[in-house]
Amino acid sequence: MLHHARDERIPVAILGATGSVGQRFIQLLADHPWFRVAELVASDRSAGKSYQAAAPWRLSSDLPEAAAALPVLDYDADLQSPIVFSALPSEVAGEIEQRMARQGRALFTNTSTHRMDPDVPLLLAEVNPSHAKVIESQRRNRGWNGFIAANSNCSAMHLVLALKPLQDAFGLEAVAVTTLQAVSGAGYPGVASLDIVDNVIPFISTEEEKMTEETLKMLGRLDSDAFTPAPIVMTAHCNRVPVRDGHTECASVRLGSTPAIEEVAAVLAAFKGRPQELGLPSAPDRPIVVRPEENRPQPILDRDTERGMASVVGRLRPCPLLGYKFVVLGHNTIRGAAGASILNAELFKAEGLLPV
Amino acid sequence: MLHHARDERIPVAILGATGSVGQRFIQLLADHPWFRVAELVASDRSAGKSYQAAAPWRLSSDLPEAAAALPVLDYDADLQSPIVFSALPSEVAGEIEQRMARQGRALFTNTSTHRMDPDVPLLLAEVNPSHAKVIESQRRNRGWNGFIAANSNCSAMHLVLALKPLQDAFGLEAVAVTTLQAVSGAGYPGVASLDIVDNVIPFISTEEEKMTEETLKMLGRLDSDAFTPAPIVMTAHCNRVPVRDGHTECASVRLGSTPAIEEVAAVLAAFKGRPQELGLPSAPDRPIVVRPEENRPQPILDRDTERGMASVVGRLRPCPLLGYKFVVLGHNTIRGAAGASILNAELFKAEGLLPV
Amino acid sequence: MLHHARDERIPVAILGATGSVGQRFIQLLADHPWFRVAELVASDRSAGKSYQAAAPWRLSSDLPEAAAALPVLDYDADLQSPIVFSALPSEVAGEIEQRMARQGRALFTNTSTHRMDPDVPLLLAEVNPSHAKVIESQRRNRGWNGFIAANSNCSAMHLVLALKPLQDAFGLEAVAVTTLQAVSGAGYPGVASLDIVDNVIPFISTEEEKMTEETLKMLGRLDSDAFTPAPIVMTAHCNRVPVRDGHTECASVRLGSTPAIEEVAAVLAAFKGRPQELGLPSAPDRPIVVRPEENRPQPILDRDTERGMASVVGRLRPCPLLGYKFVVLGHNTIRGAAGASILNAELFKAEGLLPV
Amino acid sequence: MLHHARDERIPVAILGATGSVGQRFIQLLADHPWFRVAELVASDRSAGKSYQAAAPWRLSSDLPEAAAALPVLDYDADLQSPIVFSALPSEVAGEIEQRMARQGRALFTNTSTHRMDPDVPLLLAEVNPSHAKVIESQRRNRGWNGFIAANSNCSAMHLVLALKPLQDAFGLEAVAVTTLQAVSGAGYPGVASLDIVDNVIPFISTEEEKMTEETLKMLGRLDSDAFTPAPIVMTAHCNRVPVRDGHTECASVRLGSTPAIEEVAAVLAAFKGRPQELGLPSAPDRPIVVRPEENRPQPILDRDTERGMASVVGRLRPCPLLGYKFVVLGHNTIRGAAGASILNAELFKAEGLLPV
Repeated sequence: MLHHARDERIPVAILGATGSVGQRFIQLLADHPWFRVAELVASDRSAGKSYQAAAPWRLSSDLPEAAAALPVLDYDADLQSPIVFSALPSEVAGEIEQRMARQGRALFTNTSTHRMDPDVPLLLAEVNPSHAKVIESQRRNRGWNGFIAANSNCSAMHLVLALKPLQDAFGLEAVAVTTLQAVSGAGYPGVASLDIVDNVIPFISTEEEKMTEETLKMLGRLDSDAFTPAPIVMTAHCNRVPVRDGHTECASVRLGSTPAIEEVAAVLAAFKGRPQELGLPSAPDRPIVVRPEENRPQPILDRDTERGMASVVGRLRPCPLLGYKFVVLGHNTIRGAAGASILNAELFKAEGLLPV
Repeated sequence: MLHHARDERIPVAILGATGSVGQRFIQLLADHPWFRVAELVASDRSAGKSYQAAAPWRLSSDLPEAAAALPVLDYDADLQSPIVFSALPSEVAGEIEQRMARQGRALFTNTSTHRMDPDVPLLLAEVNPSHAKVIESQRRNRGWNGFIAANSNCSAMHLVLALKPLQDAFGLEAVAVTTLQAVSGAGYPGVASLDIVDNVIPFISTEEEKMTEETLKMLGRLDSDAFTPAPIVMTAHCNRVPVRDGHTECASVRLGSTPAIEEVAAVLAAFKGRPQELGLPSAPDRPIVVRPEENRPQPILDRDTERGMASVVGRLRPCPLLGYKFVVLGHNTIRGAAGASILNAELFKAEGLLPV
Repeated sequence: MLHHARDERIPVAILGATGSVGQRFIQLLADHPWFRVAELVASDRSAGKSYQAAAPWRLSSDLPEAAAALPVLDYDADLQSPIVFSALPSEVAGEIEQRMARQGRALFTNTSTHRMDPDVPLLLAEVNPSHAKVIESQRRNRGWNGFIAANSNCSAMHLVLALKPLQDAFGLEAVAVTTLQAVSGAGYPGVASLDIVDNVIPFISTEEEKMTEETLKMLGRLDSDAFTPAPIVMTAHCNRVPVRDGHTECASVRLGSTPAIEEVAAVLAAFKGRPQELGLPSAPDRPIVVRPEENRPQPILDRDTERGMASVVGRLRPCPLLGYKFVVLGHNTIRGAAGASILNAELFKAEGLLPV
Repeated sequence: MLHHARDERIPVAILGATGSVGQRFIQLLADHPWFRVAELVASDRSAGKSYQAAAPWRLSSDLPEAAAALPVLDYDADLQSPIVFSALPSEVAGEIEQRMARQGRALFTNTSTHRMDPDVPLLLAEVNPSHAKVIESQRRNRGWNGFIAANSNCSAMHLVLALKPLQDAFGLEAVAVTTLQAVSGAGYPGVASLDIVDNVIPFISTEEEKMTEETLKMLGRLDSDAFTPAPIVMTAHCNRVPVRDGHTECASVRLGSTPAIEEVAAVLAAFKGRPQELGLPSAPDRPIVVRPEENRPQPILDRDTERGMASVVGRLRPCPLLGYKFVVLGHNTIRGAAGASILNAELFKAEGLLPV
């Protein structure tokens, strides 16, 4: 723990603090230069206890001491933090998240509830930072001082990171993707061991729909205050595999032009976005890392690349059906969830978009 | 063990008897009504020992007693069996398999060496039994009394079973498939545990090429004595996952017409082939089993369907890119390897095509 | 399915029919020669639906058709079956199981609730069939026409099977055991995949206590109507490992005499009990199978020995601390749970101890 | 990578550099303040290539750049480094390691070959640093300028760390231990995935013998120039489990006195050794970390404690047989192998025992 003699960092609250993504938020924010974890919120079952007592810590690093001692607040608690990160279960998120925004807070959410709302930006900081502008109409429409900014599903996130530079450089007409998703994507307790040891589950409820519509929204256009999804034909098969962390995705793409394979690789490897320009604290140096080996990326070897904030692309090769195919892999609870939210909050702060 | 007071079953030899597929041959042939395991052949390392002593048995059923006591013969041994099943490593298979055919034996092989030879049939008994006719020209070309009949790669096998009825009923124009393949497909010792526990390997050497060319050969045409691959655009991504047995394959297909989804399901479920007509001993009642559940097929639950001889199809649904998509799963060392060879041999016997 | 033109088998009910052990009961009783699954009972959540609709079937064989169509009854339902098998969660078992016995039924239970009651026999059919006599005082004490007969914890079961012949032949003074237990022992959903993929959990709540006290009760004496636990010093460490089925147990024993190792092996291999004498339908031919290989037993290879009803012993060797040590492995939901209950019921029927 | 403008660090060589432990050496030495990886040695197969080309890097951090570019030398190469770390296969280690010592080098080895030699110290830096004195007689006996200092088997290492403070404080009479060992302990490719997915192997060749004799040597006495093994009765069962890294060990101990459990816990937690006194670069602050939770230590959560250099003890509780029992877990390729060797070398340097 760094010590901040007179801590001037912005206090932040975490909703759903005892879940898998909640724990990642606490871990990633432990020594954050701008934000300080001040309030932890969870369901009634945990509220009233210290965070340490409320739920066992399930990450391999130790529970940060500052968080361990915080009391767990319930969903109705009167919060002080101007920035709120949400990892709430989608069943309860709707009303609570809206209340936060109504109270004037900046609410950055991982939950699916508001992702497809027409006035909520679905932000991936390197990909569509300009979508943040829709927050103006969100506030107007809803009479809020604060706002809701969402990030996408963990499987859409890494695919979109890899697709964005291709779309920009060559145009993008069609995508076929099959995912091999880690069990941590289902939260805790999530997937039962009897369902996954020595097994594959070729189905994740509503995942293919989310992955498709969220990808097209993120790659789409915001004109004045309306989103137009990207005109890309997309199909997704989503599978769960016995891997702890790291989603592996096999993608084929039809581009709008016919670049040489070296150009495709170069465009991926060179990709930078606004977080890199701004030097945001959680921004990876290389949002996309291209591996040359024939058998990479692999979850064990590549999920922690750039502290879990990169999408790692490999096996770029011609596809007889669509033109090119490749594998993209990324950490699903870091860049795919908590890390993406934090990066969005950093972007807002750096761009002067916070209400505080 | 059944006892055959005066055993009139045809003696068969197994080449590569100590490997994973070799053990499956021994297991599946233990009580076969037509064939009797008479000779076991393996590399010098094992030759001279009893089979039991040569290699540990790694299947969950007990090693059949009759096989346990057989001596392991070396590659140069003078065999007596008129039927030979080969599970040889591809590095050594070429010359040995040809010798068997030259000596007048019927050689049914799992090895890749001869699969794409222009005069070798790549047989899946329900799918392309008529390809067996090419053996006439094979004998003519090569001056053999015996012959080589191959079966395909384990991942191609289950895909082709599912594609065949669609091709017949609707025409088939394009296929995109992503596999999640079991470790037993790599033989023994095969995949190192450090490479696969908590991991996915998004690459299997030459598998995508084999899967594509073998699929198109099996679904193709034999005219007089030349094969024409099926005119299908096909792309494959092959992955290894931490599953013992059972390949899961996510496929999207563009058909030649636009049937209703119920028609597609009905055509798959109704599929029968020559083995079912002939009532062959190893033939599954239902070569394709269609599961209605939203989360099937799964390796643990479905790989042993019809004693491992069925391809199990599930999650049939529309595909925005190609029309329909589904998951097909099957046992990779039973139907995907040894069981397919045995079924081919049964077909040849029933059709009177054996040299014996 | 066998057909019973005029089914004269005894109707049985299964309590907790949708859980892991409940499903095993249904599977093992599907074609039972003496018993017919007539009633399936589960919690309110499932009650009122057909069994097939109430819960997904999670075993690799297909759900038996007869059971699929049965309606699921709730805990208060008025049952007809004179024999009841219980796989209830321990939180609810107490009152329901007692009601069954009060109503005159023979209740065979897997649940821990009544196992240590002083008038309830903890039966392992080969080991302590004479303990069934305590049922007379149970009925007297409680004024019941029926009775409760329990079987032990799954980890105690296989250990006790291996210890019994040693106790009989040589005397048994001390046991140290460390278990490596399968996830199916925790039921469904049971162990979260995030807790066990690439992991070991060195703790199972109350398991060490149960394993110890139940072992000593089963190996103890029943005098008139009181149990005396066996005077054996025992220590247990219980671990959960990423294995689906099959508990592996490393045991060291101090015997009352000093037999040669060959004698110990011979006594284990020769062990038979009352179920073998009576030829009970579920009795394994060999309750204990002794494997000579240096690296057996293993879950994958040995858990299905004798249809999952055997305890497989291997690695018998000297122990510098206690005298001898060995590994014992067995299927935890077959012999370790449902199969043991069924064998107990068969024993009662064959011995004329059923109230029916 | 730190940059050392004028690198005055001691050059070191790594024998067996392409194996699992060899890779750990490279990783752990990448930014070492005292040592610089200067020479990498492997078998003929790799020799002549750059390290990067010789073998795929299999650890999750990136291959350090300095090592990537080094040429791989063969076993006969003329080395320059005065310090040599060996992770050679035991089949080839004997002669090569002796040659290094004869040439005047300090050879720190992980290999089992010389561990039990009467004039070779088996060192665990916190436990028996005084055993280093035997090197004087080793040199005398063998006429060497250099020496061989060994570290133990990975499973003995963590057990001994936990036993040492108990032996010192209370005396130690008997130990019973059952291990659940990670697959990385078998090197690469090591354990075949077919042998361990959904499985346990209750046997590791010669491991129980090594674990016992090495434990007693490390805890034993060195008088003038002869070792006396500790007079402890010890028994070990060794198992392989499907875990990547981290050995879990269940131990029962009979102490020489009868301390309260709090005393036992306090003695473990307070343990420090010479490396902590000297502030050696690789020394963990806490060589033993005692966890209070009922279900710890676990490989996933605890193997990286103190950068993999701690032994984590949990579940300390009474043992009916021996007095106390507990679980100890540690990283098998860091503290259990490469890290222990490096710490030994640091100890020698700090104590002025290096020949350089």
